Amino acid sequence: MNANSAIQPGELVRLPARRGVAITLERGQVVRVINTYGKQVVDTWAFNRADLHEAMSMEHCRASWLRVNPRVGDTLITNRRRPILALVEDTSPGVHDTLIAACDPSRYQQLGVSGHHDSCNENLFLALDAIGLVVEETPSPLNLFMNVPLSRDGRIEFAEPVSEPGQYIELRAEMALVLVLSACPQDITAVNGMKPMDVHYKVM
Amino acid sequence: MNANSAIQPGELVRLPARRGVAITLERGQVVRVINTYGKQVVDTWAFNRADLHEAMSMEHCRASWLRVNPRVGDTLITNRRRPILALVEDTSPGVHDTLIAACDPSRYQQLGVSGHHDSCNENLFLALDAIGLVVEETPSPLNLFMNVPLSRDGRIEFAEPVSEPGQYIELRAEMALVLVLSACPQDITAVNGMKPMDVHYKVM
Repeated sequence: MNANSAIQPGELVRLPARRGVAITLERGQVVRVINTYGKQVVDTWAFNRADLHEAMSMEHCRASWLRVNPRVGDTLITNRRRPILALVEDTSPGVHDTLIAACDPSRYQQLGVSGHHDSCNENLFLALDAIGLVVEETPSPLNLFMNVPLSRDGRIEFAEPVSEPGQYIELRAEMALVLVLSACPQDITAVNGMKPMDVHYKVM
Repeated sequence: MNANSAIQPGELVRLPARRGVAITLERGQVVRVINTYGKQVVDTWAFNRADLHEAMSMEHCRASWLRVNPRVGDTLITNRRRPILALVEDTSPGVHDTLIAACDPSRYQQLGVSGHHDSCNENLFLALDAIGLVVEETPSPLNLFMNVPLSRDGRIEFAEPVSEPGQYIELRAEMALVLVLSACPQDITAVNGMKPMDVHYKVM
């Protein structure tokens, strides 16, 4: 089963609030991730389809970019330092995060939630499971549109996204890969403007 | 085989330049890592001894500290957000790195090295192998004494450590764990002052 086998090229697809999706891309295909309502963070992972142990790695990307955040023209690389995605367009102010782990059940427990809470980490595993794939570890995600202001002394905070409705980012596959997007369900800190929303994407 | 079974409490042990070591610690034990010659980076990992899939995670630590770098009094947490180490003393200026991946064969290849070059990533696997352990993935390391100056606009650079000979950091085990130290063999960028050197450690 392939979660995006039924998607037509260029078709606008809804990713419901709090949910994740795995998208298989051939080398050269571009995915546009649209922040439909403007303030939604999208946790993003990419895995080499031929070897899921090779994955997009923020700690390797930063050493390559010599910056904490990516910009248009940057290549995103794997834990084997090979290009996996290219950031080809960004109509948002370019504020994305590479520093923070995906939310997970332990995060919500520590924030005082009792019982189940959706999480990006769970969305990763569920999205991959839906196309018959399993990964054991969770790479540090590229958190699209996530606003983590950084002081020169190294302090960071969680703030509302600065993106606006309809702004988008485009990522081009540099190898055959599995992309996972999670519309972050965080509703306790400000990262999604306190209200998780749908986003949309299209594959071109 | 246990690499540190023969080490006496408080004994000063040499970690040769360019090499790594795995040290098993019981909860409450403290390891002192001494920058003997002042400018040596030590890549550091910690794994839950009962489950090597649980490891110290920089991306989880940053979300907990709300800072990019740790300070005395901080707890270092795992990918399950549980305390694994505590930073209990630091006589250096406190400049350490959490942003950059361990050096590895692909890093040196991209820096123009032909043939073999020692690397922290290889040191991790060799050190664990010496005590009969295997991990499949390399967590983003805590790079002790590594100086990666950060501009407010997110630019980073690789600079010489600001630590001085004999300065040290002490880490206390918050669970039974395997600590891996690698005296970084990087001699192409400035991170070790261009000259990889021995460091020393003691377990208390």
